[in-house]
Amino acid sequence: MDKNNNDLAPNLSTEQEPLYIIKADGTRELFEVSKLEESLLNSGASKKTANDVISHVTSELTDNMTTKEIYTHAFEILHREEKPVALKYSLRHAIMELGPSGFPFEDFVAEIFRAKGFEAKTGQVVKGFCVEHEIDVVAWNEEKLIMVEAKFHNELGIKSDLKVVLYVKARFDDLHKMTFSYGKERQLDEAWLMTNTKFSSTAIEYGSCQGGLHMVGWNYPPVGNLHDMILEAKLHPLTCLTSLNGREKKVLLDQGIVLCKTLRDNPDLLNTLGFKENEIVKVMEEIKTL
Amino acid sequence: MDKNNNDLAPNLSTEQEPLYIIKADGTRELFEVSKLEESLLNSGASKKTANDVISHVTSELTDNMTTKEIYTHAFEILHREEKPVALKYSLRHAIMELGPSGFPFEDFVAEIFRAKGFEAKTGQVVKGFCVEHEIDVVAWNEEKLIMVEAKFHNELGIKSDLKVVLYVKARFDDLHKMTFSYGKERQLDEAWLMTNTKFSSTAIEYGSCQGGLHMVGWNYPPVGNLHDMILEAKLHPLTCLTSLNGREKKVLLDQGIVLCKTLRDNPDLLNTLGFKENEIVKVMEEIKTL
Repeated sequence: MDKNNNDLAPNLSTEQEPLYIIKADGTRELFEVSKLEESLLNSGASKKTANDVISHVTSELTDNMTTKEIYTHAFEILHREEKPVALKYSLRHAIMELGPSGFPFEDFVAEIFRAKGFEAKTGQVVKGFCVEHEIDVVAWNEEKLIMVEAKFHNELGIKSDLKVVLYVKARFDDLHKMTFSYGKERQLDEAWLMTNTKFSSTAIEYGSCQGGLHMVGWNYPPVGNLHDMILEAKLHPLTCLTSLNGREKKVLLDQGIVLCKTLRDNPDLLNTLGFKENEIVKVMEEIKTL
Repeated sequence: MDKNNNDLAPNLSTEQEPLYIIKADGTRELFEVSKLEESLLNSGASKKTANDVISHVTSELTDNMTTKEIYTHAFEILHREEKPVALKYSLRHAIMELGPSGFPFEDFVAEIFRAKGFEAKTGQVVKGFCVEHEIDVVAWNEEKLIMVEAKFHNELGIKSDLKVVLYVKARFDDLHKMTFSYGKERQLDEAWLMTNTKFSSTAIEYGSCQGGLHMVGWNYPPVGNLHDMILEAKLHPLTCLTSLNGREKKVLLDQGIVLCKTLRDNPDLLNTLGFKENEIVKVMEEIKTL
């Protein structure tokens, strides 16, 4: 059984007919077993579990299956075998479903800062020394003013590379020369670059060489990364709910509502948005189980 | 007649059946009269001439026509009406045909510096203070060491925006702290950002605020822009030749041969690359007429 599973990935990619899958944005793409494998390993699955999941998923794969169906299936098997890994895997995909525009990710990052006791605003246009900059998230409390560039990718495997860190660095250099009036008249204390995926190794090398830049990715730094921040703040994005369909999630995201917590604390929200009573009950019950 | 022509653009875009055209990379795209108009006006055509050309071109437009056919037709009419404008239009398209990879554009920029008496190398990996950077063109003479980021776009209407200028600025900040051994042990004197298209207005605003960054686009700055540099150095890219077909041009570009001048000065080159004698004669004759 083990041997069979280990051989499966190479067999699929070299000998079987190529299969196409439908991505979240509706485009078709060749199914690559390596991408599924990478996303499983990234969530902390063992090589053996990843191979088990791949074996199950690929045996039932059909042409034009959606990535969502594939992910749901992978999650079921993973959940049976390694529950903590399944939760991390599911959380990562829920964050990815905040897309495709990236704006809900900014709202999500703002919520993380609010959970840490900051005030936070998204989409701020602020004056630098040379030009105006659009800053994804501005967060402040009595001690600190933080500005965040939030880099959202709705595909696994896309890394934020050196060019991104370079332009963020130059943008913050332009901002460090100015004063702002968030909370009080003050200068910028910290510049952050946050992403839901990875940084390339050169991006990390450059970032750690630059004193002033805080870089936070899904798995980076080893402690205090995005995954840690979400767990610490107990912030589940509403995209992780199965009691809401895609259209319903979109309605909420479009209103800037990104967290299960927001729905839990404001039960009337779903009411005013036209959700039916029995739907609301189902959503609230699912939120309680998280 | 004039009135007719002036009305043509709005008519086409709102009332006629949509037509698709085939781009250089083989993809299909909706034909937009505004893009053709913009490229004509950008080359310096008067509004009246642009309308004349558009009127002729659109009357003979068929579904799935290639952008190359459309451009050739537009050029014929423009050549009859405003010859200097036609030459600028044609040169701009010849530069665009250096794509799609952008590498020949780097070679082309290197040739511009050589024509100005510099030594020049492309694709150099150089050590910055924090990380290594891939520099498109390094050019040096006794007085100056210049490093160039060459930004190539093979579509009209794509601008190099603020993010590009920001990352180039940060990259050069990292390089300004180091010494290099091009020609002699020395520091970086000038950092250039060159593009075959335009810069956004914020990109220009930021760039002019930064002392050390030289920005050169097709039409920017008003004097000493890419178009001026090409004319001054008498450097016609070989993509402007009609005596070579696309495949033949690609063979030459892949060898790093980008200029008509290179072919003129080395008549044996075409020989060694397997061109036939009668083809070579035709190419050489066309080069003489430039």
